[in-house]
Amino acid sequence: MAENENPIRFGIIGCAEIARKVSRAINLSPNATLIAIASRSIPKVKRFAIKNKVSENVKLYGSYEELLDDPSVDAVYMPLPTSLHVKWAVMATEKGKHLLLEKPTALDVKMFDEMFEACERNRVQFMDASMWYHHPRTVKMKELISNSEIFGRVKAIHSSSSYQGTAHFLENDIRVKPDLDSLGALGDTGWYCIGTILWTMNQKLPTTVTALPGTVWNSARVILSCSASLYWDEEETVATFYCSFISHETMDLAVCGTNGTLHVEDFIIPYDENSAAFSFTSGAKFVDMHIGWNVKPQQVQVDTPLPQEALMIQEFSRLVKGIKEGRSQPDSKWAQTSRVTQLVLDAVKNSIDNGYKAIQMHFQFLSGCSIQTTLLKTSPSFKV
Amino acid sequence: MAENENPIRFGIIGCAEIARKVSRAINLSPNATLIAIASRSIPKVKRFAIKNKVSENVKLYGSYEELLDDPSVDAVYMPLPTSLHVKWAVMATEKGKHLLLEKPTALDVKMFDEMFEACERNRVQFMDASMWYHHPRTVKMKELISNSEIFGRVKAIHSSSSYQGTAHFLENDIRVKPDLDSLGALGDTGWYCIGTILWTMNQKLPTTVTALPGTVWNSARVILSCSASLYWDEEETVATFYCSFISHETMDLAVCGTNGTLHVEDFIIPYDENSAAFSFTSGAKFVDMHIGWNVKPQQVQVDTPLPQEALMIQEFSRLVKGIKEGRSQPDSKWAQTSRVTQLVLDAVKNSIDNGYKAIQMHFQFLSGCSIQTTLLKTSPSFKV
Repeated sequence: MAENENPIRFGIIGCAEIARKVSRAINLSPNATLIAIASRSIPKVKRFAIKNKVSENVKLYGSYEELLDDPSVDAVYMPLPTSLHVKWAVMATEKGKHLLLEKPTALDVKMFDEMFEACERNRVQFMDASMWYHHPRTVKMKELISNSEIFGRVKAIHSSSSYQGTAHFLENDIRVKPDLDSLGALGDTGWYCIGTILWTMNQKLPTTVTALPGTVWNSARVILSCSASLYWDEEETVATFYCSFISHETMDLAVCGTNGTLHVEDFIIPYDENSAAFSFTSGAKFVDMHIGWNVKPQQVQVDTPLPQEALMIQEFSRLVKGIKEGRSQPDSKWAQTSRVTQLVLDAVKNSIDNGYKAIQMHFQFLSGCSIQTTLLKTSPSFKV
Repeated sequence: MAENENPIRFGIIGCAEIARKVSRAINLSPNATLIAIASRSIPKVKRFAIKNKVSENVKLYGSYEELLDDPSVDAVYMPLPTSLHVKWAVMATEKGKHLLLEKPTALDVKMFDEMFEACERNRVQFMDASMWYHHPRTVKMKELISNSEIFGRVKAIHSSSSYQGTAHFLENDIRVKPDLDSLGALGDTGWYCIGTILWTMNQKLPTTVTALPGTVWNSARVILSCSASLYWDEEETVATFYCSFISHETMDLAVCGTNGTLHVEDFIIPYDENSAAFSFTSGAKFVDMHIGWNVKPQQVQVDTPLPQEALMIQEFSRLVKGIKEGRSQPDSKWAQTSRVTQLVLDAVKNSIDNGYKAIQMHFQFLSGCSIQTTLLKTSPSFKV
C-alpha cells in the first residue's frame, strides 16, 4: 500500500501517562512510525522507554528543543500541561513540525489562536488529540442523527464526562494545578462534553452559554466539577453537560430529536477496543392505553479495524503526508473543531466567573480573509 | 386474603384518556373495585363505558356532584384539567372521599395546599397518580443508589421526559390550553422529571432552581418545552432536566454517584408491562493505558406481579382501608412527595417568568404544627 510507504515520523514531547497510549497507537497506525521521544531529562525519558518497552530505534532526547531540532521528525504529539502549550507548539511549528496537541488545546481562545496562526504561517497540520471523533461508531452515530426522517431535528442534548480521581490524583496531578492546567475538570473532561455537544450540532456555536450553580473548586481554585447549559436560538435546541473529577466514571451522550433518540454511555473510551455500541430509537409511541412502547431501543454495534487512537494517528498522518508530498494544504477542519470547543469552554468559564450569568456569544467576522480563515477567525466577543 | 375482602370502591371523575388505563388498573388491583364513573353528561359517560367495555355493574353519572353524593363511593380518581382540581378535589374531600389526583396536582403550591388542607380536615388519604413510584424496579433502583458502598453519594442527576405531540394534540389537547393546563409540558412531562430528581434526593428540596434559556411556548403562552437545573449546596449535587411536547419519546434518568452510575430510559412507562430493567455500574475504572473499562454496566431486570398502575391503586387502597377500618390515620408521605414536586415546579416557572434567574428556595417553618404538618407546611418563600 502506498499509504504505508514513507510513514510519517513522529516525535513525542513529554512523557505523560497518555503518551504510552499514543505511542502504541503510532505503532499500530500503518502510515506512522515513532522515531523520537523527549522529556526534560535523559533519566526521565529512559525510564519511560524502559517501562514501555520502546523500540531501540527510537531516539531518546533529554530536552524538547533537541527533538524539535531533529530534521527527521515530521510531526509531534504534545501531551504537555496546557499552560506550556503555546511555547512549545509555536516552537514546533516554526521548526516545521506538524502538531498533534493534547486537549484542552489552550487556556483560552487567544492562546489557541496564537498556536493556530503559527500553524497557518508555517503551513503545518493541526489536530487535537480527541480520539473519539475517529471511531467508526462516531461516524455511524452521525449518519443516524443526520437522517431527518428517522431522527428529525435535534432538540435536546445531554452529556456527562467524569471520573473519580484518587486522593493522589486530586493532590498531585497536573490537572488540578493552577499553574499547569488551571481549567481543571472543565478543561479535561468538560472538553469532551462540549466537543460531543458541538459535534451533534455540526460545530455550530450556541447563542447562549450559561454555567449552572454548583461548581466545585479545590483549595487552589481549580475546578473539580461543574455544569453548564447551551442554547441555539434558531434551532430551539438546548444542551446540558456535567463534568467532574469527583464522580464515578461517566461518558454519556443522550441526544433527543423530534423523531428519534440516541444514547451512548462510553463515547470517549469505548468499553472494549474492538467494537462499540450505542442505542437508538426512532418513531417510538405508546401502545394503546399507555402500557408500553411500540418500539424499543435498538443496539447498534460498530466494529473497528484499529483502536480509535490509531485511527486518529492514521488520519492525522494522511493529512500530513499530503502536505509533505506537496499534494495538499493543511486542512483546517480539525482546528475549527478545536476552536469552537475552546470558545464554548471559555464562555462556560466566563459564566462561572461572573456568577453563572448567561453569556451571549456574538461573533464578528473579520474582513479580508479567505472563507476558511474567516470561519476560524470569528473573534469571540462575549456579552455577559 | 383479608386484603381482598371489602375492596375499596372507586369512582372516576372525568372521562379523560388516562381514565381507561386507571379503570383497568382498579380492576386488576385485588383490593379495589370500580363502582362509578362520572362525566359532564350522560351521553359522554355512556360513550366512555361502551368504548371501554365497562362492566354493567358500574354506575354512570352525568355530573361529578352525583358521583360525589354517592355514599357507596370510598375514593375518587380525578383526571380533570389542572385548573379544575381545587374545586372538585375540595368538594370530594368534604364528601369524605379519599383522593387520587392526576398530576400536575395544581397550578401552584397555594392551590395544592388548599386541597391538601381539605384532605387533612376531612381525614382522607391523598395521593397523586404518578405510577412509576410503585413499580418494584423503582424500589430496586432506590436500594442500589442508597447503598453508599456501591453507589457512594449522588453528585449529578439528569432526567428527560418528552413526547412528540401530534398536530391534533398541539392544537386541541387540554395540556396546551391556558385555561385548563397552563403549565403545559412543565406540568405534564416536567412533573416526572422533577419527581424523579427529588426521588433520587430523598425528597429533599434543592437550594437553588434555575430554568435554562430555551423555553418554547405556543401562541397562547403555554410551555411546549423547557429545561432547568437544580442544586443542593450541602450535598454539592446538581441536577438538570428537559421536558417537552415537541420531541421524540424520552423517559430518561441518569444518576451519577461517587462510586456508581445508574441509567434508565423508560422510567415513567416501562417498555413492557411485566418486567422492567435499568443499567448499573459500580467501581468502573479504565484498564491499563485507558483502552477500555474494567467493568461494564450490568442490566438489572425486575419483574412485577401487577402493572405499576395497579400497584399504585393497591397501595392507595391499602391506606384508605386502614383509615376506613379505624386502624390508621391518613398517611401524608404521598402528599409530601407531591408537594415538594409542586414547589420545585413553581420555582422553575418562577425562574422562566423572571428571565431565567436563579431562584433561591428558602423555607420558613411554621410553628405550632405537628411534625408531619410542619414538614408539609414549610411555606415557599422564593427569592429571585
